[in-house]
This record gives sequence, structure tokens and C-alpha cells, in this order.
Amino acid sequence: MHLLVINPNTTASMTDKIGAAARSVAGPDTEITSVNPAHGPVSIEGYYDEVFSVPGLLEEIAKGETAGVDGHVIACFDDTGLDAARALANAPVVGICESAVHLASLVAGSFSLVTTLGRSVPALEGLMLRYGMERRCRSVRAAEVAVLDLEAPGSTARDRIKAEIWAALREDGAEAIVLGCAGMADLAAELSETFGVPVIDGVAAAVKMIEALVGLGLKTSKVGAYAAPLPKPYAGTFARHAPKAS
Amino acid sequence: MHLLVINPNTTASMTDKIGAAARSVAGPDTEITSVNPAHGPVSIEGYYDEVFSVPGLLEEIAKGETAGVDGHVIACFDDTGLDAARALANAPVVGICESAVHLASLVAGSFSLVTTLGRSVPALEGLMLRYGMERRCRSVRAAEVAVLDLEAPGSTARDRIKAEIWAALREDGAEAIVLGCAGMADLAAELSETFGVPVIDGVAAAVKMIEALVGLGLKTSKVGAYAAPLPKPYAGTFARHAPKAS
Amino acid sequence: MHLLVINPNTTASMTDKIGAAARSVAGPDTEITSVNPAHGPVSIEGYYDEVFSVPGLLEEIAKGETAGVDGHVIACFDDTGLDAARALANAPVVGICESAVHLASLVAGSFSLVTTLGRSVPALEGLMLRYGMERRCRSVRAAEVAVLDLEAPGSTARDRIKAEIWAALREDGAEAIVLGCAGMADLAAELSETFGVPVIDGVAAAVKMIEALVGLGLKTSKVGAYAAPLPKPYAGTFARHAPKAS
Amino acid sequence: MHLLVINPNTTASMTDKIGAAARSVAGPDTEITSVNPAHGPVSIEGYYDEVFSVPGLLEEIAKGETAGVDGHVIACFDDTGLDAARALANAPVVGICESAVHLASLVAGSFSLVTTLGRSVPALEGLMLRYGMERRCRSVRAAEVAVLDLEAPGSTARDRIKAEIWAALREDGAEAIVLGCAGMADLAAELSETFGVPVIDGVAAAVKMIEALVGLGLKTSKVGAYAAPLPKPYAGTFARHAPKAS
Amino acid sequence: MHLLVINPNTTASMTDKIGAAARSVAGPDTEITSVNPAHGPVSIEGYYDEVFSVPGLLEEIAKGETAGVDGHVIACFDDTGLDAARALANAPVVGICESAVHLASLVAGSFSLVTTLGRSVPALEGLMLRYGMERRCRSVRAAEVAVLDLEAPGSTARDRIKAEIWAALREDGAEAIVLGCAGMADLAAELSETFGVPVIDGVAAAVKMIEALVGLGLKTSKVGAYAAPLPKPYAGTFARHAPKAS
Amino acid sequence: MHLLVINPNTTASMTDKIGAAARSVAGPDTEITSVNPAHGPVSIEGYYDEVFSVPGLLEEIAKGETAGVDGHVIACFDDTGLDAARALANAPVVGICESAVHLASLVAGSFSLVTTLGRSVPALEGLMLRYGMERRCRSVRAAEVAVLDLEAPGSTARDRIKAEIWAALREDGAEAIVLGCAGMADLAAELSETFGVPVIDGVAAAVKMIEALVGLGLKTSKVGAYAAPLPKPYAGTFARHAPKAS
Repeated sequence: MHLLVINPNTTASMTDKIGAAARSVAGPDTEITSVNPAHGPVSIEGYYDEVFSVPGLLEEIAKGETAGVDGHVIACFDDTGLDAARALANAPVVGICESAVHLASLVAGSFSLVTTLGRSVPALEGLMLRYGMERRCRSVRAAEVAVLDLEAPGSTARDRIKAEIWAALREDGAEAIVLGCAGMADLAAELSETFGVPVIDGVAAAVKMIEALVGLGLKTSKVGAYAAPLPKPYAGTFARHAPKAS
Repeated sequence: MHLLVINPNTTASMTDKIGAAARSVAGPDTEITSVNPAHGPVSIEGYYDEVFSVPGLLEEIAKGETAGVDGHVIACFDDTGLDAARALANAPVVGICESAVHLASLVAGSFSLVTTLGRSVPALEGLMLRYGMERRCRSVRAAEVAVLDLEAPGSTARDRIKAEIWAALREDGAEAIVLGCAGMADLAAELSETFGVPVIDGVAAAVKMIEALVGLGLKTSKVGAYAAPLPKPYAGTFARHAPKAS
Repeated sequence: MHLLVINPNTTASMTDKIGAAARSVAGPDTEITSVNPAHGPVSIEGYYDEVFSVPGLLEEIAKGETAGVDGHVIACFDDTGLDAARALANAPVVGICESAVHLASLVAGSFSLVTTLGRSVPALEGLMLRYGMERRCRSVRAAEVAVLDLEAPGSTARDRIKAEIWAALREDGAEAIVLGCAGMADLAAELSETFGVPVIDGVAAAVKMIEALVGLGLKTSKVGAYAAPLPKPYAGTFARHAPKAS
Repeated sequence: MHLLVINPNTTASMTDKIGAAARSVAGPDTEITSVNPAHGPVSIEGYYDEVFSVPGLLEEIAKGETAGVDGHVIACFDDTGLDAARALANAPVVGICESAVHLASLVAGSFSLVTTLGRSVPALEGLMLRYGMERRCRSVRAAEVAVLDLEAPGSTARDRIKAEIWAALREDGAEAIVLGCAGMADLAAELSETFGVPVIDGVAAAVKMIEALVGLGLKTSKVGAYAAPLPKPYAGTFARHAPKAS
Repeated sequence: MHLLVINPNTTASMTDKIGAAARSVAGPDTEITSVNPAHGPVSIEGYYDEVFSVPGLLEEIAKGETAGVDGHVIACFDDTGLDAARALANAPVVGICESAVHLASLVAGSFSLVTTLGRSVPALEGLMLRYGMERRCRSVRAAEVAVLDLEAPGSTARDRIKAEIWAALREDGAEAIVLGCAGMADLAAELSETFGVPVIDGVAAAVKMIEALVGLGLKTSKVGAYAAPLPKPYAGTFARHAPKAS
Repeated sequence: MHLLVINPNTTASMTDKIGAAARSVAGPDTEITSVNPAHGPVSIEGYYDEVFSVPGLLEEIAKGETAGVDGHVIACFDDTGLDAARALANAPVVGICESAVHLASLVAGSFSLVTTLGRSVPALEGLMLRYGMERRCRSVRAAEVAVLDLEAPGSTARDRIKAEIWAALREDGAEAIVLGCAGMADLAAELSETFGVPVIDGVAAAVKMIEALVGLGLKTSKVGAYAAPLPKPYAGTFARHAPKAS
């Protein structure tokens, strides 16, 4: 199967890292194409950045549809643009946050999220509620590390993430950890060994989840929430994104 | 005070109608400017349309901030782009859905929403949960009327809306009705008289709510969820929207 | 418009303070009458005091109705007698707790309440649940200050309130503060400046909220929960309060 | 043990009926005294009536405390004044609604309430939420029978109650029925036989529940919500109800 | 009445202790038979132990049914096998956890559970949700004491339990304590005196609760969740447990 | 990888059918062993049957662990014995209900369950709550078909299932369907085509879900809820199941 993994920010080095993480867990018959939009923020940290990442994200999804991919992964832990992508695509679409927390709920009675910045905590708490995980998720903790600093040499990011994991296990009673940023994809194995509990990376989780959906032949329901966009004109620079009659 | 009322779709006739509805309830010292984005969908019916309405919406909000408006109203019942707008603006921002349901909860033990299309129902149910109104809201009903048909001469839209209100009162036990589309702004008074219960239009509700916030000197908290966007580059056509260091 | 602001306890100096707070935010066309019952407790601290404040409160509301006021504010943070007042009145009625938390939810992702005594915490937690604010409200904290001590010269009340606000912001992740007692009405502006987050006083919030309702012509739904009391005899000293056939 | 069963309305014939229902299930060593206030409404149908029943109710509870009763039952299905009574009394206090629903949850996976008037439905739904029974309670149905009509000869009340029970079992999936009015106390046994499911009367349930609490030596916690009222003056006609220093 | 109290583990000394606790609160007309299964774990600490305790538990309940007992108590704080027991029995069945928390909610605004081992905490949190007590229950705390150590001479178990009670009252705001293990049945009175709040033992609570149900003639509803097992063959060693046609 | 699929009932023909369903979706490198216990009920329809299926189920899981399987699937829609299996096994374990509903939530805004008998509805509603799916799941509907009748020639089972699917889509607003019985595994593809929405079979879903977990190297957390059973004696016929010290 052919999967499209879209990093919704425009930082190509992160796209590469995400692509590598995706390929490292993909099945033998799975081909991964990792892309990022040409337009939008270099990292997504808060609601404002999200807005300007989604048009480009949807453009990549539209291209993937035309190319006939079998499934899409949105590789930002805010699950940016997920609903619109589902309305647009015929192939199934998953986000990395939702994939990670659903899998976490299958291997632990409870879990905590450890993310980058405190400003992302309320948005992630909102996702937990939306996904029905508000009781399973013990806490959303922020290591106060900027997304792009995760890649910086000499960064103390790793230590700060470890400190939050420790606190989640000890003070919040978490039984597993979900890493709350696509940029942490390479840390899961090491952290899992260090702490002796499941540590789940969203990119890897999403690849396996979309492989599962594709393997079952499941596609997004087109009845209700994710019905195809109604054909209509879009004004100005977005005109070319206007839904066409099918 | 000077309020900016933004219709996030690009249909100017609806902007005018919304502006008139806003002005009809505004206080004597309130000046209303109603605008719509230059770019984006002519109506917002589902998640996909939402995405392409928000960049233009935020552009209008940014212009309003520069012009020194005292508050912003987002006049689409999906409360499109509300979180990003709050992160961007210094002046307070309200959506018409949230304004209407909060006021509804002050004048009735329960209420129902009556909106346009069935595809919008799941999104509105999601808003009810987010706003803590999932118990107060008895039902979200769709009249299956396209947004722009609300304005069409000879439309049966009004009758279909009445039928759903009747069902909400009788079958669902609603004690009040919230009209779930900015395009229904002119119907509230008549429907309230017909049915003998409060019928609340979101545009009017939002104007009074933002007047209340401005009157109290309240602005959005910049701690946590709505912290100002971090300065960073945006690639491509969105470069001019990149947050600047303040 | 003419608004009645009822302090449900019998301490006239607090009534004056509440009236002043109300007038300081009221619109230019709003006339505020502030009253308190002739009968009942000098302060309301717990469920027992509430009971004996409500008959007098309703008497004031009945007088206000006869006088033709446009709206009523119940100025006790327990929203004492609110349901009965809505059943009685034709004009709309709001409580100061509900007004404050609804507005708080429009300017912050989360908030905490800071009230007077620990014994009030469970009642306020109950209100949060009733208003659908149990997820938005991060904590209800008590400064352990008696209501009437808020007015005492040399009181350390202010410092204890500040300590709890600090803890709410720092430990509980609150993004805004709601002051949980009508007697704190004069502190909001100063505290907001000190802490750099919205600090909301219920009296001011309620005045603007009832102005919004009156401005929209909204009245309490008389279908269901707030139907007018059925005419029937009341025995003994309460006979004169018996509902009459209309 | 000596139990006080208080009918909070002032209709003596209903007090007698309630007293008889209580005695019919009481243990051999249980003495039941049934009383009603001297002041207040002849029946309690809605929030307004509740207000004027509670001062008299508390007066009866205070008398019971002085007389040394071992426990109190509040025999109105709205559990009128329950919190204040718990703050006042040293002996434990139960309401008939809470007693009935807690017991119902021990003998059935779900239940429905069948009450008198539609205007009581929202209040009872509120109690379900407060008691944590919002998921167990499938529906609150109203037979649209006035409280005092339950005693009227030739009334069709019984048939209308049966119709609602039938609908609750068939349409709502209820596995047991709770009768939502103290005036239905004499119907439970017959209805249970007719429908072949548990039909629970609140008065009987409350007597057994308070016998359980008294038998275990349990009294209301005086820490937190139900702390004893603080001594303070009450003005006017309620002065004699003012809490005294103990 | 004749009640069967089943200790689902196979430690006879604990059965005796439970029986004594049950008899110490039983009414004068209540005969208590306490038993334990012949087969299964010596203590129940986690989900695995539960599985092997339930067949023997159900065997005891079946014997009790044949003997014509009036009610059953399952005396393990996990309420092990409760649903199956209700499906099997004609007489009513209660668990000690559910009995304790329902009674706790009648004498306090909130409570905490103090149990033996941390591994039991998630299961008890699950029960709180199931019983609708997730808001009333402030915390589930573990004293990290093995069940059988509660009976060991020289154990520090009691001190560790007291430390958790203290923390629940002080840090979690609990207003009452529920002891989360049948083996703590003899501690309730002493701890209640020490801490000045209600401390509730599940065995005692369950005896009074089942006395209440039996006193009211209430039996488990056989409609829906607890319908009698359908007659069918069981293979192998469980063949004799196969439900017979009635 | 080697997966063990355990049908917890003792009907070998159903085990074969489940095994075939599992193999039909398994990856090329996945080996499926399907087994059923030697002891226990021939079908699982309600809480009582569940009890006598779990010891045999756990015995099969223990054998699988010894044989070194990579993951376990419990193929009964009640997710019978899931918690105990997770405590026992080192390899990950999933149930077919949880697998199906988690996947359903990724391809539809809402779904309904269609199961066999009405008596299973409350148990499945309980699972929805436990899995956080109580808002996504619109309804649990029963076709009133006995499990083993699904395999009977000439059965009307299929028509009755279709009628309930139709009702779920039309009346309850479901956007996808989850088939609530392992015995329906062969119907999903056909029904999906008939109704034009995703129809999900739990056995297939579970195979892909456990493949995902195994592919990620995720095992059940042994901290907290699913800690390994403590070593202790088991009395009587269950002695050989007693946990050993590791």
C-alpha cells in the first residue's frame, strides 16, 4: 500500500525525520511518501499557526488523492486539519495524536501526554475530550521546549522531557506515556527502555493505524460529518481550492 | 465603542444582512463595521469550507486591530477560527454560536439548535461539548436548507425551519430555540412570537455579549491557550501572515 | 432600562457597595436600584443561610415586577434563589456567579474561582456542574475570609485572596480568575492589573449580562422549568406569598 | 429508633398518607413521627413553592433535633431543602428521591422516574446529575397529574401513571421504575405486580435508608459542605431562626 | 430475614472476621450466614485473582438460593462477580463497595476511598464511574498494605491507613472516608472517632443496604441487564454450572 | 508474527469461522492460531456465561504465552476477561469490541452497535463508557437473534440485523456500524456495500489492531492496573492457576 505522511509545517528537515520514523515501522508492503506544504509556518505552536498550515496540508492531500494513495497521515500532534482532510479525501485519514492515544488505551489503564509548550496544553486537553480520552489521560504536561529546538545540538530538551515523564508516572499515576510532538518520533524506544512503561510516538502509531484501516478496506464514512464538500465558488486566491461537482 | 463584525464567507449580501442585524441591536454608542474576507468560500457548509475562510477572517481581524476596534464578532455559527482569532487579537472576540447558547442558558432550562444542513450537526454537537452545553442542548436539528437559499425568493426555508422548531419544542422538550445560522438573523423576532418561547439569533447575541465584555474592560487572557502567536517565518504565500515579534 | 440589583443578605452597607459596583459599569441609559430584603441573614455562608434569604429576595423581585423593572440581578455568588426568581418574574433574572463564569469562558480557556470560606466550595462546585463549567473551571479555592470581614479595616483578607489567585494561576493552570463573592466587587480591577489576567467580578458581569438580555428583548422561557407558579393557597405566615391566578 | 418524617407541604391528609406509608415498611423498633410545617404551600410543584416550604421544614427538623430523634426523612420528591437540613441537623437526613434512586441502582441496570407534572422534569433531571444517576436514569416522565389530584376520587391519575410506566419500559429501556411523588406512596406494590419490574416508592425507600444510616451510627459529616451554620444575626421575622453559637 | 454474606476469597479467618462484622450491625431479626468458596485465591488483589474467585462465589450464591436466603452480600471491595450474581439470584444482591459509596453520598458532600494496594486503584476508579460516583469520590488512595497483612500481628498497616486518611481529608478535600477492603471492617468505628468524620466500612454498609432492600420486598429486575441466564450446555468441568430451563 | 485468537465460548464451529475471518485480513507475515477453551459455555449471552468462559480463556492465553505468541485477541464482543488477560500476558491483548469501536471512531463522526440480544445492551453500553465512546456511540441496538442462530440455515437473522442497521442510520444518526458479535464476522463486507457506510467486524478489527501493537513493539504496561498477578496459593480445583513467583 502507498501512504502519504504529511508534515503540516514547512520545515523539510522535520519532514525527513518524520518520514524516516514512518518508514522504520511500516510493513514490508507499505510505501511511505513524506511531504510538507510549500506554504505556511515553519512549526505549529498554537491555534494561529494551525490556520496557515491547513490550506497547504489539504493541497498535499488532494495531490495524494489524485496520485491514488491508500491512506493519509497528518503528522502534527494537534491533529491539525483532520476533519477537513476527512471530508476531502476518499482514502482514510488519521492524525498522530488520535492514533497514539487510542493505542495507548489498549496497553495501559491510563496515560499522560508530554508535549512541547504550555500553550499547547489546552488544545490537547480539548482533543482528549473530543476523542473520549478525558478519563484515560491523567495529565498533559509540557516540557517547555520549542518544537525546532528538539533538533538543536546541545539542547537540554531530552532532559526536560524525561523530567516530565517522571512526574507523570510518579505524581499523576500514568501507566504509559504518549509523546506529544511529531518531532519526538526518535525518542520513544529509548524512553520506553529508561522508564519501563510503554512510550508511544504518534507518527509510528499513525502508520500502523492507517495500515490497519487500509488493510480492512475501511474508508471514511461519507454520511454526515465527513460528507464531501458541496460544490461552490471560492473567491480570490482560494478559488482553485473550490470543491467541484463530482 | 467600535465593533468589527466579520462574516467569514465572501457573500457580500449576507455581510450586509448580518451588519443590519448587528446594528439593529447595538447600543447607542456602538459603531458596527461589517466586513467579509476577499478570499474564500461563498458560504460555509462543513469542515472543508471552514479551512479556506479562516485566513481571510484573520486578515480582517488583523486590520481591525490596527484600526483600533474594541471587539470582534465572528458571524458564522460554526464559530469558525475563534481560537486563532483570540490568539491574534488584543481586543476580545466572540462567536455567534457561543454567544447565543450562553444567553440561552440564562433564559431557559434547556434549548435546541435549528441549523441549515445535516452535515453541520456533528460540528455543532462538538461545539456544545466544548462550551459545556451538552446537557442544556436538547437537540441539534437541521432544516435541510442551503445557507444561500435562506435569501432566495419563494424559498420554503422558513416553513422547514418552523417545522424543526415545532419538533424541538414538542418532541425534545426544548424550552428555547437558538437559530443556527447567521443567515437566519432576521427571523428571530417573528419566530419568538409564533412559538411563545425565546428564539435567539447568534448575531444579535454576539453583539450584546461583546458589548458586555468591552463594557467591563475584559480582554482575552494571554496566559495559556490564547497566548500571542510566537514570532516565526511562514513560507510561501502565507509569509505576510507570519507573526512578528512585538 | 431599569434594573433591580438585589443583595439577598440584610447588610445595608454591602447593598450600597454592590449598588455602587453595579452603577460603575452600567450603561448610560441604565438605572440601577439596589435593595436587600428586610428579613434574613446578615451574610450568606452556607446552605442554611441561603434558605432564609430567599423569601425576602423573592419579595423584592415581586416588588420590582410590580414597579416594572426590566431585569433582575441576584447579587450573591451562590446564585441563591435563582430558579424560583425565574419562575416568579416576567423580566429576565441573572445570578452573579453564572454571569461571571459565562463571561470568563469567553475570554479564557480556563478559570478558577476564589471565594471566601471553604464551606462554600462544594456548593460552588455544584454550580459549575449545573452551568456546564465543570471542565472550564480548574479549581474553586477559598481564602478563608468571612464575608463581612472583607469590609473590615485592617483585614488581611486582600492578601489571602491574592495568595489563592497566585496558586490558581501557578498550580491549577487557570487563565483567568472569577471572584467568588459579591463583597469582592471593588477588587477586580486592581487584581487584574496585579496578575495580568482577566479578573472578573460577578456583580459587574451580571449587570452587563442582564443589559444584554434586556437589550435583546429576551425573557425567561415560561415553558418547562420556569413556568409561572401554579395558583394555590399557602398556609400561615407565607399566605401572602401564595401565587395568584393570572 | 425514632424517625421524623417531614412532609414539606402543608396538606395534613398527605402527611397522614406519607406517615402510613412510612410506618408500613418501618422496622419493629422504629417509631415514626410524621409532621408537616404550619406555614407554606399546600403542595410543591416547582421552584417557587419549594422556597416557601423550606423554612417550615427546617423548623420541624429543629424541633426533631431538640426532641432527640435519630434521623430525618424529607418526604417531597424534589428533595426540598436537603442540603440546609443536613447543615442544621446532627442526626442524619435523607430525601425520598435520592433514597429511591440509590436503591433502584442496586436492583436494576437502569430506571426511569415517573412524576406528576412536566414542570418538575427539569428539576428532577438536575437531581439525577447531582446524584450521579444521569446515566442510570433513562428518562424522567410526567403523567401530567396535579399532586393533590392523586387523592381525588374518580381521578384518572392512576391510568396516566401506568401509561408512562409502560412507555418508560418499552421505549426508554428502563428496567425499574421510581415513583416521583410522595403522594404515590400507596401505588408501588400494585404497579410492581402489574409490570413485573421493581417499582420503588421514595417514602418507603427513605425510611429503610435512614434506618440503615442510623443502624450504622452514621451522621452527616460536619467537615465541608454540611458544616454547622455559623452563628450570626438574622433580621426581621426570621430572627428566631438565626444560628446560635454552640 | 436470612442473609448470605460471601467472602469470595478462600481465607476462612477473613470469612469469620467479615461474618462477625456483619453480625455486629445486623438487625435483631436478621440471621447472617458467612461463607467462602472452596476453590480460588486466598486473597483478591487485581483482575486475575477476581476471575478465579467468581465461579466459587456463584456456587455459594446458588446454594444460598436453594436454601431460600433473602439476600446476598458479596464481601470483596472490588464487587467481584456482582453482575453475574444478580443475573443468577432471585434474592437481591449487593456489593460492599457500592453499598458503602451510596451511603457515603448520603452523609457527606464528597468522600475518598482508602484501599490496600496501588494495583487496585484503577479498578476502583472504574467502579466509581460505573456507580456514578466519579464526581463525589475525591480520590482513591492506597495504603500499600497486602490484604492478609491487615490481620498480621505487629503490622504497620493501621498507621499507613491513617496516613492516607489524613491526606485524603487535608489534600483532597474529602468529607468522609470509605474503607476499601473487607479486611478493614473492624477499623471503621475507631477511625471515625480519630478523624471526626464518617468512616464507612463496606461490610456493615452492605448488610444494612440488603436489609433495606429485603425490607422493601425489592428484588433484582429480570428485565434487561440481569435477565436470568439462558439455558444452554456448558462444556467440561463447568458443565454442572450450566443454566437449566426454569 | 504469531497471533492467538481465542473464541471464549466452546463452540468449535464458531472458532473455525472466527479463525477464517481473522486469517482473511491478517498480513502476509501473520500466523493465526484460533482456539477455544475446553471448559465453559457454548455461547456467551450475558454476565453469567461470561464468568464460566474466562478461566478457560485465561488457560489458553497462558498456553499461548508459553508457546511464545506475539499477541492475543479475545474474540467475544463483550471483551470478556480482557483485564485479567492483560494482567496475565506479556504479549499485548485486545478485545474485538474495543478494537472495532476505536477504528470506527477514526472513519466516522459517530457509529452504532448492532448486537444479538437485548440482554447484552446494558453490558455494551458499559463498555462504551469504559472506552470513552459513550458520546461517539449513538445507540446499541439488538437484532434479537441468538448467537448460535447466526449460523443456522434458513435463519432470518440477517434480515433482522439489516433492519436494525437501517434504523441506526436513519433514526439515530449513526455514520458507521459496528457488528456486535464475533459470529457476524462474515457479514461486514456485504453489509457495507448494501448500506454505503463503513460496517466494521470486531474480529478483523482486532487482528489489525494487534498487528499494529506488535509491529510497534508495544506491550501492556505492567505498572498499575495490569501489574502481574501476585504469587499466592489458590485453593481447590483452581490451584493450578495460582500465580507463581517469577
